[in-house]
Amino acid sequence: MKFNNRNIYIADSANIGKNVKIGDNTFIYENVTIDDGTIIANNCIIGEPLNDYYFKNEYSNPKTYIGKNSLIRSHTIIYAGTKTKSNFQTGHRVTIREFTEIGQNCSIGTNSDIQGFCVIGDYCRFHSYVNVGQKSKIGNFVFIYPFVVLTNDPTPPSDTLIGVEIKDFTQIAAGAVLLPGCVIGSNSLIAANSTVGGIYEDDSFISGSPAKRIGKLSKMPFFNKSGKRHYPWPYHFERGMPWAGIGFDNWREQLKTLNNIDD
Amino acid sequence: MKFNNRNIYIADSANIGKNVKIGDNTFIYENVTIDDGTIIANNCIIGEPLNDYYFKNEYSNPKTYIGKNSLIRSHTIIYAGTKTKSNFQTGHRVTIREFTEIGQNCSIGTNSDIQGFCVIGDYCRFHSYVNVGQKSKIGNFVFIYPFVVLTNDPTPPSDTLIGVEIKDFTQIAAGAVLLPGCVIGSNSLIAANSTVGGIYEDDSFISGSPAKRIGKLSKMPFFNKSGKRHYPWPYHFERGMPWAGIGFDNWREQLKTLNNIDD
Amino acid sequence: MKFNNRNIYIADSANIGKNVKIGDNTFIYENVTIDDGTIIANNCIIGEPLNDYYFKNEYSNPKTYIGKNSLIRSHTIIYAGTKTKSNFQTGHRVTIREFTEIGQNCSIGTNSDIQGFCVIGDYCRFHSYVNVGQKSKIGNFVFIYPFVVLTNDPTPPSDTLIGVEIKDFTQIAAGAVLLPGCVIGSNSLIAANSTVGGIYEDDSFISGSPAKRIGKLSKMPFFNKSGKRHYPWPYHFERGMPWAGIGFDNWREQLKTLNNIDD
Repeated sequence: MKFNNRNIYIADSANIGKNVKIGDNTFIYENVTIDDGTIIANNCIIGEPLNDYYFKNEYSNPKTYIGKNSLIRSHTIIYAGTKTKSNFQTGHRVTIREFTEIGQNCSIGTNSDIQGFCVIGDYCRFHSYVNVGQKSKIGNFVFIYPFVVLTNDPTPPSDTLIGVEIKDFTQIAAGAVLLPGCVIGSNSLIAANSTVGGIYEDDSFISGSPAKRIGKLSKMPFFNKSGKRHYPWPYHFERGMPWAGIGFDNWREQLKTLNNIDD
Repeated sequence: MKFNNRNIYIADSANIGKNVKIGDNTFIYENVTIDDGTIIANNCIIGEPLNDYYFKNEYSNPKTYIGKNSLIRSHTIIYAGTKTKSNFQTGHRVTIREFTEIGQNCSIGTNSDIQGFCVIGDYCRFHSYVNVGQKSKIGNFVFIYPFVVLTNDPTPPSDTLIGVEIKDFTQIAAGAVLLPGCVIGSNSLIAANSTVGGIYEDDSFISGSPAKRIGKLSKMPFFNKSGKRHYPWPYHFERGMPWAGIGFDNWREQLKTLNNIDD
Repeated sequence: MKFNNRNIYIADSANIGKNVKIGDNTFIYENVTIDDGTIIANNCIIGEPLNDYYFKNEYSNPKTYIGKNSLIRSHTIIYAGTKTKSNFQTGHRVTIREFTEIGQNCSIGTNSDIQGFCVIGDYCRFHSYVNVGQKSKIGNFVFIYPFVVLTNDPTPPSDTLIGVEIKDFTQIAAGAVLLPGCVIGSNSLIAANSTVGGIYEDDSFISGSPAKRIGKLSKMPFFNKSGKRHYPWPYHFERGMPWAGIGFDNWREQLKTLNNIDD
């Protein structure tokens, strides 16, 4: 059993929702809210205090929020000031620094490190060892694979940090380095081990060191096992996606209808 | 002392062999067997329950087995369903996901992440930060260096996972990316930071992004400090190898004799 | 509160200075000295015993020293025999193996792994996931970015380890692989994702796989937001540097004066 109530620290000011489970040896610091149905596994630290905690007598921990029905796996550290929406999942030993905002249904893999002051949309999936630099801006349905780094300092070292921007549905394959300030359009694919700077339009296949746009991703000969062009991928992958069971086009139609009702 | 019997959790159904030591703050979950003479250092998790543990009322933890005389260093997480043979060693914070099979005398370095459903042979050595994707198949005497990734999804994202295969005695230098489905023959070397797809014959030196076969590894001008061609390396390296003290050829002769006796 | 004195192990032979704080679940092993004003956060291991600890009855832990006013963040492991000077900082889950010497005012980022028997100068900053191989020699004011590896085995596997040397003020951008025995002169920059072997003079801009010297770094068109050539960078960056507030040239003048007084 992971949940024996052994050696747990929960600050008095923490708000723990209904049906929340907290694993042994976990710390929940001041001003953390864990919403209903969320599981925090063993040896985690939620609401890790910022640097000032060590050096200033008057320190108040910024508010941290973990959305409903999330699963935070063991040894994960989430800093104070970070907010995640519902159905968030992490692998083991994930680090998420302060003031990061993460949308719904995201997952961040084992040993990944999100450096803080980032914005991440909905339904993103990061695999193991993804390193997201400060001030990165990531859209929805973005998947990032191992050993990818989003950098931010154009003239290291400096105090000028310019984050990377990645737009919706884009895939960043393993080992790619994204240079400071680069902008990757939506529905694009960056090939493994590429070194990518500059601004790329939507539907780009980008490859090389230094990387170039090879052409429209939707026209590239990337065929899946059904023999069809795989991109745009939402027509061929639905596990965990909001269009699962209904298809991408139907989901988009439903979204439009919903948005019209909202108007 | 690492072994003070403090804050340890051992499930009733775990089988702990003779002369096993278990470090403080370590968890041994249900249906784990730790064979004789093995040391599990501090803060480890052995038999980490699978995803269903969190979501299904009826969950039975698959059997986990850690072979004799192994040394699992601190903060390592080994999932349920994984089996390792004798003399297994890990660095710190290694993650080995479910249903992985690891042969005898292997070591896996600090911060490495084996994604599960992999087969790894005997006498393999992985350095720090090695990321092995699901369905990888690795032979015997394979050494892998830091920040190497074995990928598995040819059209990300998809549900078609095609593992990498690496054959006996092959070396994968730091930072190489192995693309889905690539097959690297035995006695080969992949140069640092290469991006490797396709199928390569035995005795290949492979380099570049995209990588090419440069030629026979045994003919390349890689000389060691004795001024000899270093490859095939088993003639020049024996620390921890079964031919230590007797030489590679004698060991192979002995193996043949043993196999004949078996016939 | 991180400092509740819960589940802490401190060996009798450890020397704990004045105003030292030690976080919950932390281990301080035999023959460790923590100097005054240092903070060791939660779940750390300081003075981790070497391999012989497990296998020899007569084992004596080498002396470990953590300098004054340091901040070791959670889950960091520092092996016995390592010595760090004052104002040392780590991120989370840093590993520093045995007999490493680290100068004053250094910081080593989250998930970095220093392999032991290394010498690191003063005011170095390593970001997340930096992997420094054994026998590396790093000067002063060297900054290293994520997923950089300093390798050491020219003919893997072998017992001939030849470390990398990096001289003062040099910057190694993300994802670079430094090959065994390479020497990078001072005031240089290695571009992201480069693969670098050989010996490079001071003031080099080095890029590519395999890398080449593109030219003098000080002549390259790397302009900062003030529109000035950014390199040599000490004229344009001072946060945490000893010339903060007085300028690089004035600091050098003061150093010269101090050195003359010492003579």
